[in-house]
Amino acid sequence: MILYCCLACVFIEKCYGTRTDIELDAKAALTHRIDSLNLLLYTGLLALTILTIWLFKHRRVSWLNETGLAVIYGLIVGAIIRYTGSANERTHISVDPQDNTVFNASLPPDALWLQFPGKLSNASIDDVSNKTYAYTFRGPVLKEKEIDFKATFDPEIFFNIILPPIIFYAGYSLKKKYFFRNLGAILTFAILGTTTSAFLIGGLMYGFAKLLPAYLSSDFTFLDTLYFGALISPTDPLTILAIFHDLKVDVNLYALVFGESVLNDAVALVLSGAIQNYGEHYSNNGSFETSAFLKSLGDFFSIFTLSLLVGSSMGCVTALITKFTRLKDFPLLESALFVLMSYSTFLIAEVAELTGVVAVLFCGICQAHYTYNNLSTESRVRTKQLFELLNFLSENFIFSYIGVSMFTFPKHHFDPVFITSGFMCAAIGRAVNVYPFSWLLNLNRKPKISKNMQHMLFFAGLRGAMSFALAIRNTVSEARQTMLTTTSLIVIFTVVVQGGATNFLLNWLNIPFGIEDENELLNANQYRNEGDYEGNRETIRKNEKAFIARIWGDFDKSYMKPLLTHSRPTLLDTLPTYCNPLARFLTTTEQLTQDGLNRNSDTDSEIYQINDSLNRRDSLNRVSIQIYADDPNNPIASYINSRD
Amino acid sequence: MILYCCLACVFIEKCYGTRTDIELDAKAALTHRIDSLNLLLYTGLLALTILTIWLFKHRRVSWLNETGLAVIYGLIVGAIIRYTGSANERTHISVDPQDNTVFNASLPPDALWLQFPGKLSNASIDDVSNKTYAYTFRGPVLKEKEIDFKATFDPEIFFNIILPPIIFYAGYSLKKKYFFRNLGAILTFAILGTTTSAFLIGGLMYGFAKLLPAYLSSDFTFLDTLYFGALISPTDPLTILAIFHDLKVDVNLYALVFGESVLNDAVALVLSGAIQNYGEHYSNNGSFETSAFLKSLGDFFSIFTLSLLVGSSMGCVTALITKFTRLKDFPLLESALFVLMSYSTFLIAEVAELTGVVAVLFCGICQAHYTYNNLSTESRVRTKQLFELLNFLSENFIFSYIGVSMFTFPKHHFDPVFITSGFMCAAIGRAVNVYPFSWLLNLNRKPKISKNMQHMLFFAGLRGAMSFALAIRNTVSEARQTMLTTTSLIVIFTVVVQGGATNFLLNWLNIPFGIEDENELLNANQYRNEGDYEGNRETIRKNEKAFIARIWGDFDKSYMKPLLTHSRPTLLDTLPTYCNPLARFLTTTEQLTQDGLNRNSDTDSEIYQINDSLNRRDSLNRVSIQIYADDPNNPIASYINSRD
Repeated sequence: MILYCCLACVFIEKCYGTRTDIELDAKAALTHRIDSLNLLLYTGLLALTILTIWLFKHRRVSWLNETGLAVIYGLIVGAIIRYTGSANERTHISVDPQDNTVFNASLPPDALWLQFPGKLSNASIDDVSNKTYAYTFRGPVLKEKEIDFKATFDPEIFFNIILPPIIFYAGYSLKKKYFFRNLGAILTFAILGTTTSAFLIGGLMYGFAKLLPAYLSSDFTFLDTLYFGALISPTDPLTILAIFHDLKVDVNLYALVFGESVLNDAVALVLSGAIQNYGEHYSNNGSFETSAFLKSLGDFFSIFTLSLLVGSSMGCVTALITKFTRLKDFPLLESALFVLMSYSTFLIAEVAELTGVVAVLFCGICQAHYTYNNLSTESRVRTKQLFELLNFLSENFIFSYIGVSMFTFPKHHFDPVFITSGFMCAAIGRAVNVYPFSWLLNLNRKPKISKNMQHMLFFAGLRGAMSFALAIRNTVSEARQTMLTTTSLIVIFTVVVQGGATNFLLNWLNIPFGIEDENELLNANQYRNEGDYEGNRETIRKNEKAFIARIWGDFDKSYMKPLLTHSRPTLLDTLPTYCNPLARFLTTTEQLTQDGLNRNSDTDSEIYQINDSLNRRDSLNRVSIQIYADDPNNPIASYINSRD
Repeated sequence: MILYCCLACVFIEKCYGTRTDIELDAKAALTHRIDSLNLLLYTGLLALTILTIWLFKHRRVSWLNETGLAVIYGLIVGAIIRYTGSANERTHISVDPQDNTVFNASLPPDALWLQFPGKLSNASIDDVSNKTYAYTFRGPVLKEKEIDFKATFDPEIFFNIILPPIIFYAGYSLKKKYFFRNLGAILTFAILGTTTSAFLIGGLMYGFAKLLPAYLSSDFTFLDTLYFGALISPTDPLTILAIFHDLKVDVNLYALVFGESVLNDAVALVLSGAIQNYGEHYSNNGSFETSAFLKSLGDFFSIFTLSLLVGSSMGCVTALITKFTRLKDFPLLESALFVLMSYSTFLIAEVAELTGVVAVLFCGICQAHYTYNNLSTESRVRTKQLFELLNFLSENFIFSYIGVSMFTFPKHHFDPVFITSGFMCAAIGRAVNVYPFSWLLNLNRKPKISKNMQHMLFFAGLRGAMSFALAIRNTVSEARQTMLTTTSLIVIFTVVVQGGATNFLLNWLNIPFGIEDENELLNANQYRNEGDYEGNRETIRKNEKAFIARIWGDFDKSYMKPLLTHSRPTLLDTLPTYCNPLARFLTTTEQLTQDGLNRNSDTDSEIYQINDSLNRRDSLNRVSIQIYADDPNNPIASYINSRD
């Protein structure tokens, strides 16, 4: 997509008449074709990956997962391009500033206008000598390496186009019941764990760099290694999701790990931004300054909190709109509004200089928790399926790209010592994230996390899209290029080797899998023995819920859900009597007149409802539903499976 | 989206250390925020349009349709931006070529490298003097007007991002049964009608330009006016779809008009390309040359045919893949492959210097005619809903943009005489497209097109997305800018005024609407009295089908459908006996063992099947299906409505 734009820039103005213009047109057409070819390469690569995944699933091959496959295909194609393709020739000329008064500014201009005479070909002189061409600013030139655009994209597309749907879908498909139940533990893991891991890796890597300066080809500051620590700490939510789905572990543990891996992406993104800011704005010489450190810490918390607020507010606004209009009479309009509101969350956060990806995550969680209940059945299915597809395509694109860019991205720098220590530190960082915090959590946790399960957690700490995107964002110095190469290799290794070996390890560690969860079954039976279930659930809640989660849960049930959805009890029941006029205003007729079916509904139980209705379809459809249930990618499948 | 890329270009490389770099970072961040704000503007505009559409539908307001609304909101917001917003300051400096040996080429270079010293601020001299910045080529500068990027996008995004999903969806949602039945008539209307209209308008406009040269502010060549004729001739498929859905006219007529308006977009696109080529490559002075004309004619037919072939081949390849793999066991993979194959059709056509949009149209038709039958139920729903949503968002975006750009796009040129004659000629062109060809078609047509119906057809010739996209693509000369302004005004007028007045006109012209169609009912009863229906259908086919359509239909039924789908009769039945081994190879077990249910299935009947199964859902879902059926945007709704 990004290429389109670059090409489009070239395309903009065509005109007739002169030889130069026609040659220019031909050149623009050529650029457009090359760009289309690049996109076609990735499209073909994805199609090939999909067909191979199908074959593997069909033949029950378990030693290679789909992301691993995408990476491997990417590597192969990247190598082919590197060693067979001809270089993309791009001409450039250097210009010197002449008029020093114009240049007496601290910033280079946005555009250069070149008076270009052209070769005196068959066109008349008058025609040609008048031409002026515009050139737009791109960035500083790295002297050492020629810029090469072969099958590569601008790194910013990851943050603006590829990551938002992935992260939004992670939030939207979160099993919120279990997420909120484990809120305290998830926050501990994600915020404390990730930050600890980042600083530990940063410190260790800096130690290595200072101990072995002779073996390293570039110079690393503490900020560099800290940035590396921040970007290598987050684990990939999607690969973990697939692994734990196969595991069929305790749903609470599943929610814990999935919630952590979703949140630690957000934490790492904001943390790396704060580290960058520290280097750019607060500190001049790279040495430690307390005030600068505190400012960065403030940045970290304020940006994270404000992004969270923007995201959840936009989710709540969407919930309010869908509650108080009868938009669900027109499912297409409803779905379109849902998509637009979610996308505008990203844009609003970016306009406000916050982190769009983090806002989108919390927007996704709120959309699932509140808005989802107000949507029509068609919009529920449509939004789930739309974002599932976007997520799948984005994820596979990024992993293919990691593979291809290993060979074609010009700013790689191989440094064996840094790479080796990077691998070691990444493992140590993951261990620090898993073992001490599991011990801490086990102190106050009913189903304790067993030792073998902890090994599994450690082993499942694959690195993925976020680490790569953060690493490729900044490759201006040799140190940063070394970090990119190390990160790419760690991602490739963990996804292909660790991801592939998971099934063997599951058996080896004797981790019980394929167990049906009791809560899950209770949930599935909710509508059959509702009274009975309510009693049970109360007990479970008291026993299991963390303190924070309990307070939030009560507030949510009494005020947020009645305000934002059609659920009961209504605000008339929960607000004090003197607020009655306001409460009446905020309560819909639908809310007052509905039957008991919608009580306490949220995505989790709604999905169950949808499945239930799907199963009542005619025989033709039942076949496809069964197939649907076998798809390990599908969050709905686990519910169907747990019921059979 | 395009803005992202431009901003991303600026973002690329950050580094620490010098004051200039930090200011540059701040500037890049500002650019990013402005770009996000621009996107947010359109996102908000679309959300507002959606809410207002809902309100209008809810209150049963019929004098303004959704595209009209999008245009009006766009105009309001555009005016606000124009008259209140501050200008986006972009600095530029002019550079002269110094080293004449470097410049002794016919083309300007791809990039300029500027050695920029910067202001001697608090950073050290060494740091700054080393910096070189890259500038990439954008295009020729128009001396008269400063380039302004306020809330505007690169015109090429329409051809690369906005139009493909719209046109693909038009192909994918075509009622193919009626489309193929009326193939001859549709081709007459679309190819002959549009070409005649284009040349007539081109000739008339040229006449005006020569008769009234004193009143026109710019100089028009015959090629200019011919290009104008080509771009103003196609009618907008989507607005017509909405109008005729309300009309509930004879399905054959519906298919005829919808098919024509889809195809004439493709014809106009290729035709305008051929005209452009004529001007650029074959003719030097703008006067008529027979050989150049014939070459252009050859271009027109070869590009159209080859694009058609690429599109339908890719559709068939997708059908083959989905037929011979059990990919439907994993609906997510299947949907993803479907999307990737359809998108790669566009890319392949662009790489081969054909017209991607045309290829995508025929790909969509083949996907619906063949692939759709092989998909799992989930993928059928998902792909339909995905492209429906993309189409809705793209369509509304383009109409909002037409409104906003009226005020913010810098290359408008108001010329009252040209605009007035443009309006007159557009009406004349539509009349020539409707009346003579209707008369021609009535000679050999069973349910004749009545006089009033012809007036309605004339009146329903709204101009839309394709005309605007073609007009804004090239605005390099003043003549072209005048054409853009005229086209924008014609689009706005037809969409708002004609679109809004349709309901009144329907009553005034006494056109019967809301009639149930017999064929439709027969189709709906297909599975109840299949034998009976088959007999009826045979009669209908003999009576109604055009000669071309009959030949194609027989070939399709005997060879294409058995090869590409699981339908029967199989190739074993239709191919000669000596081809048996090949036929066996190309016939799946599923095809041989299935029951009669899948016979002759295609999208039209499949949609019916889906609705049928939807209606058998539980009571909760039935509510939403009823609502679904009321949505006039939904092609499925017509089927449900026709059955009630």
